[in-house]
Amino acid sequence: MSRETLPFPHSSIPPLKPYLPPSSLSSSPSSSHSKPHLTLTYATSLDAALSLAPGVRTTLSGPYSKSMTHYLRTRHDAILVGCTTAIVDNPALNSRLDTITSLDQQPRPIILDPKGRWEFTEDSQVIRLAAEFKGKGPWVITTRGKEGKERGELLGRVGGKYLFLEVGENGRFKWGDVLGLLEEEGVKSVMVEGGGEVINSLLVEPENKLVDSVIVTIAPAWLGQGGVVVSPVRTEGQEQLRLKDVSWQPHGEDVVLCGRIFTQLS
Amino acid sequence: MSRETLPFPHSSIPPLKPYLPPSSLSSSPSSSHSKPHLTLTYATSLDAALSLAPGVRTTLSGPYSKSMTHYLRTRHDAILVGCTTAIVDNPALNSRLDTITSLDQQPRPIILDPKGRWEFTEDSQVIRLAAEFKGKGPWVITTRGKEGKERGELLGRVGGKYLFLEVGENGRFKWGDVLGLLEEEGVKSVMVEGGGEVINSLLVEPENKLVDSVIVTIAPAWLGQGGVVVSPVRTEGQEQLRLKDVSWQPHGEDVVLCGRIFTQLS
Ligand SMILES: NC(=O)c1ccc[n+]([C@@H]2O[C@H](COP(=O)([O-])OP(=O)(O)OC[C@H]3O[C@@H](n4cnc5c(N)ncnc54)[C@H](OP(=O)(O)O)[C@@H]3O)[C@@H](O)[C@H]2O)c1
Ligand SMILES: NC(=O)c1ccc[n+]([C@@H]2O[C@H](COP(=O)([O-])OP(=O)(O)OC[C@H]3O[C@@H](n4cnc5c(N)ncnc54)[C@H](OP(=O)(O)O)[C@@H]3O)[C@@H](O)[C@H]2O)c1
Repeated sequence: MSRETLPFPHSSIPPLKPYLPPSSLSSSPSSSHSKPHLTLTYATSLDAALSLAPGVRTTLSGPYSKSMTHYLRTRHDAILVGCTTAIVDNPALNSRLDTITSLDQQPRPIILDPKGRWEFTEDSQVIRLAAEFKGKGPWVITTRGKEGKERGELLGRVGGKYLFLEVGENGRFKWGDVLGLLEEEGVKSVMVEGGGEVINSLLVEPENKLVDSVIVTIAPAWLGQGGVVVSPVRTEGQEQLRLKDVSWQPHGEDVVLCGRIFTQLS
Repeated sequence: MSRETLPFPHSSIPPLKPYLPPSSLSSSPSSSHSKPHLTLTYATSLDAALSLAPGVRTTLSGPYSKSMTHYLRTRHDAILVGCTTAIVDNPALNSRLDTITSLDQQPRPIILDPKGRWEFTEDSQVIRLAAEFKGKGPWVITTRGKEGKERGELLGRVGGKYLFLEVGENGRFKWGDVLGLLEEEGVKSVMVEGGGEVINSLLVEPENKLVDSVIVTIAPAWLGQGGVVVSPVRTEGQEQLRLKDVSWQPHGEDVVLCGRIFTQLS
């Protein structure tokens, strides 16, 4: 994987700004008691796929989208993925934006791993980058008893830690609990990056009320049947889940869609 | 259903033009021996759905997309749908563009109905409109023996007819045969409008080589799992089916994507 830094043109920032959390400098103390701003972001094909299959690295979108992701990461306190993404993609989860000068500007990687399935080591990218001060140490949200002792020490050495939550009957954390925990930890904004299950679970009612903005990159390609697809389970009485305050920004071959969720009842 | 005519702003035509068949006036006699120009067009949600379910009328895209469809219909000799769309939607399949002054400017409706499942009557919209000279009489492509005698007479009365093709083992016409038949009938351009099965079958290899251009409207909404979805069956050795010569045109809440197919091998 390339380690170069990435530029993001200044002119591209204004169209994104309405969808981003207030920058930390301008956030007033009074806002510290509301839930973290949640930005949902992903890159998809025309047939709504994130990848050809779990674990198959799939290059969908072009260079603008990549730079944008690295810019967006600097504009959030934390970035969050499900453990399958952490396991199969071995992602870096830091920002390589060329304007970054200190670790403070890096987002906190957060991994939802209720069963402790992510067997990270010193060689996992996110751990290695944290050891090199090129990213913050990850926070792994798991359930009591599922944390690893040695892994906990490894996390501690790179500035990360385990956090604990209880799961519901479906084996899942409640999104309200996850955001509550992050708020307690001082996180004011989180960018949720994937994968499919995480995104789909945030698009259903009433969880989608926790989503402040959505930024989707669409690439002009079909991956074909069998991919990891973003399509939420339907809620009774809801005809479609629409975005409002919509903006479409073509960049290269791709288009970037920004909006806020509103639900249309049938 | 509203019967008013629809305007289409002149300024919206140039961005579409590179993807349209040459206008009949400019088509040279030499081009009459090539297969008809095929434009594939549909309106979709972010989760690649055309409708909530077959037969559930789903309003996805906004007024621009509607006007554009009626403009595009005037720019093709024929428009084609699968019989399920004809059966469940009872579509008009004519153009209500405000510049239309004669029946000549209307596209020929073509319905693929190999088993003769579409039980049209005088009250079917496409028949009624043809009887009122507001649209051409439909051509129903079926297999020998599946045509209805009375229905054939009804078609004849409104200027339509049955056309016959043989199906393969899968019960489907070959797209090459369909286009060959249309060429024999003097059709120089056809816009394929849906539904899901028809579109998916044109996106697979090698059928997608018959597609000259693709025009997709994307609405900022998720319909949720269970819809009629556009996602082709994968071909071995093909990583993704991409578009080239891509153009994204935001209009209102929607975006219109134009492109031409090229396949990327893995
Ligand atoms: N194109 C993009 O933008 C993009 C971005 C990210 C990832 N991806 C792709 O997405 C694919 C992976 O997606 P995926 O759907 O298979 O998996 P995923 O969403 O990355 O991870 C799912 C797992 O995370 C845990 N999890 C999710 N929600 C949870 C909750 N509310 N509470 C507790 N645990 C929760 C569960 O772990 P347990 O099963 O252990 O309980 C679940 O199985 C990969 O192919 C990756 O490349 C694409
Ligand atoms: N959003 C949009 O742009 C849009 C546009 C059009 C339609 N739609 C929606 O799409 C839905 C219907 O889609 P659908 O996938 O169920 O059906 P469809 O594609 O409209 O029709 C499928 C049927 O057409 C016949 N057919 C298709 N390809 C054929 C071939 N190569 N040779 C012979 N026959 C062929 C077959 O009939 P037999 O089974 O009888 O053999 C097949 O079952 C409706 O809900 C409609 O509203 C949406």
